[in-house]
Amino acid sequence: MNCPPNSYVHGRSDRETERLNYQASKLAEMLHHDTRYPPGSRVLEVACGVGAQTTILARNSPGADFVSVDISRESLLKAKHRVAEEGITNVTFRQADVYHLPFGPDTFDHIFVCFLLEHLPDPLLSLKCMMEMLRPGGTITFIEGDHGSALFFPDSSDAHTVIDCLVHLQREMGGNALIGRELWHLMTDAGFAKVAVSPRIVYADESRPEYVEGMKNIFIAMIEGVREQAIARCLVDSETWEKGIRDLYRTTEQDGTFCYTFFKATGNKEL
Amino acid sequence: MNCPPNSYVHGRSDRETERLNYQASKLAEMLHHDTRYPPGSRVLEVACGVGAQTTILARNSPGADFVSVDISRESLLKAKHRVAEEGITNVTFRQADVYHLPFGPDTFDHIFVCFLLEHLPDPLLSLKCMMEMLRPGGTITFIEGDHGSALFFPDSSDAHTVIDCLVHLQREMGGNALIGRELWHLMTDAGFAKVAVSPRIVYADESRPEYVEGMKNIFIAMIEGVREQAIARCLVDSETWEKGIRDLYRTTEQDGTFCYTFFKATGNKEL
Repeated sequence: MNCPPNSYVHGRSDRETERLNYQASKLAEMLHHDTRYPPGSRVLEVACGVGAQTTILARNSPGADFVSVDISRESLLKAKHRVAEEGITNVTFRQADVYHLPFGPDTFDHIFVCFLLEHLPDPLLSLKCMMEMLRPGGTITFIEGDHGSALFFPDSSDAHTVIDCLVHLQREMGGNALIGRELWHLMTDAGFAKVAVSPRIVYADESRPEYVEGMKNIFIAMIEGVREQAIARCLVDSETWEKGIRDLYRTTEQDGTFCYTFFKATGNKEL
Repeated sequence: MNCPPNSYVHGRSDRETERLNYQASKLAEMLHHDTRYPPGSRVLEVACGVGAQTTILARNSPGADFVSVDISRESLLKAKHRVAEEGITNVTFRQADVYHLPFGPDTFDHIFVCFLLEHLPDPLLSLKCMMEMLRPGGTITFIEGDHGSALFFPDSSDAHTVIDCLVHLQREMGGNALIGRELWHLMTDAGFAKVAVSPRIVYADESRPEYVEGMKNIFIAMIEGVREQAIARCLVDSETWEKGIRDLYRTTEQDGTFCYTFFKATGNKEL
């Protein structure tokens, strides 16, 4: 991720790496099925993190050449290791900050960015920086979540409270956990053409056990990851926290349901 | 709709008829594309209202025979008129209450129900009543909204307040405007087999003007329809109301976005 190590709300632990990998594989089809780059195209992946999306991207477009960048050397090492382990050869890695990309103008045919903007204090500036790297007519693709989309049964105000803790902490760190709904204006404000946004909803009930597991391992795990910070900052007392987390797990029981919406957006640099 | 005339939160005015017709045509493809009944099948549509879904259903399955029922004679007259005007001949109408359907057991091959359960004090009982009318192996289809799914930019707590007024009023009248997320447990609790729920998300931004218009004419119009009741019941003061409605319209401007999720569910009566 393109955030300084201390400003990435989810941390960079091994459990977090596992969570990100799990997330990427479960959601791969839903989020990636309509992203394919032609052979010979030069693609920049910004904020590849531990490579969770990189392996999917590179496999789906085996003839394209990827340059995947991240600000964290530690994450890049994991990404490199993973890509090597999977025998993927069309990716090179480079350490870089989204605001200071070390490439010349018009270097890439396409840019791909997943789960980055939510962590940035100035997402619009980052879009402008990325646009410079893109050749005229080239495409840019963003995928972001929006925690305001979490909808579940049984509903619970304590569950919403613990989700709001993450939203609050992310905002304090300069990010925005509700950014999915903002992709439209960010991309049009940055001057991209042919902007198209499509929401992708993940829905879990007992008939879809893999999504129920995903909901536990991805969403609830992510919320649980900010427990100490949330309590330390007095955003919530520990009793409400435990109740909220319990209520989230309650939605994964037999009669429960859970929905979450991701937003995918594409645009072109004007010719 | 299968609600006594005084318990239907949206009322039965001409503007409301127009709203329901507009809603049905805009959302037809998204909600109906995967509902087709084979020639010769006997289909019961429960709570046809003014016939907004009826014409779509009947056209999509021209060989099926529909019986469409509603509790309101006034709505049925409008539905009959509309169906006749469109030259549709495979629908007969009958006045009936969902809790006391005037048919023998196992009469129908399929049942279709749209935007009814949200208005019922005992949706589970209604499912059991409908199941009796269905032959073993026959299918039932439900479509419901969930106002908790409304997500928009710019976000606004006043806009959420006015939406919550409708949720509150509907609950006071015995209904549940957050029922979409409950289709899974209602159908499994009623004993339907092979239950499958799929959310359908409507997303509006400036690049999709027909959805922005739909959002104004369907969703905001629906909220505006309970203004007097909400203020009379002191759920909100008039200043907050006006601000909330203004903020909802604000999401239909150039940089705004709006999402709403419908839930469609199908199941079978056990053989």
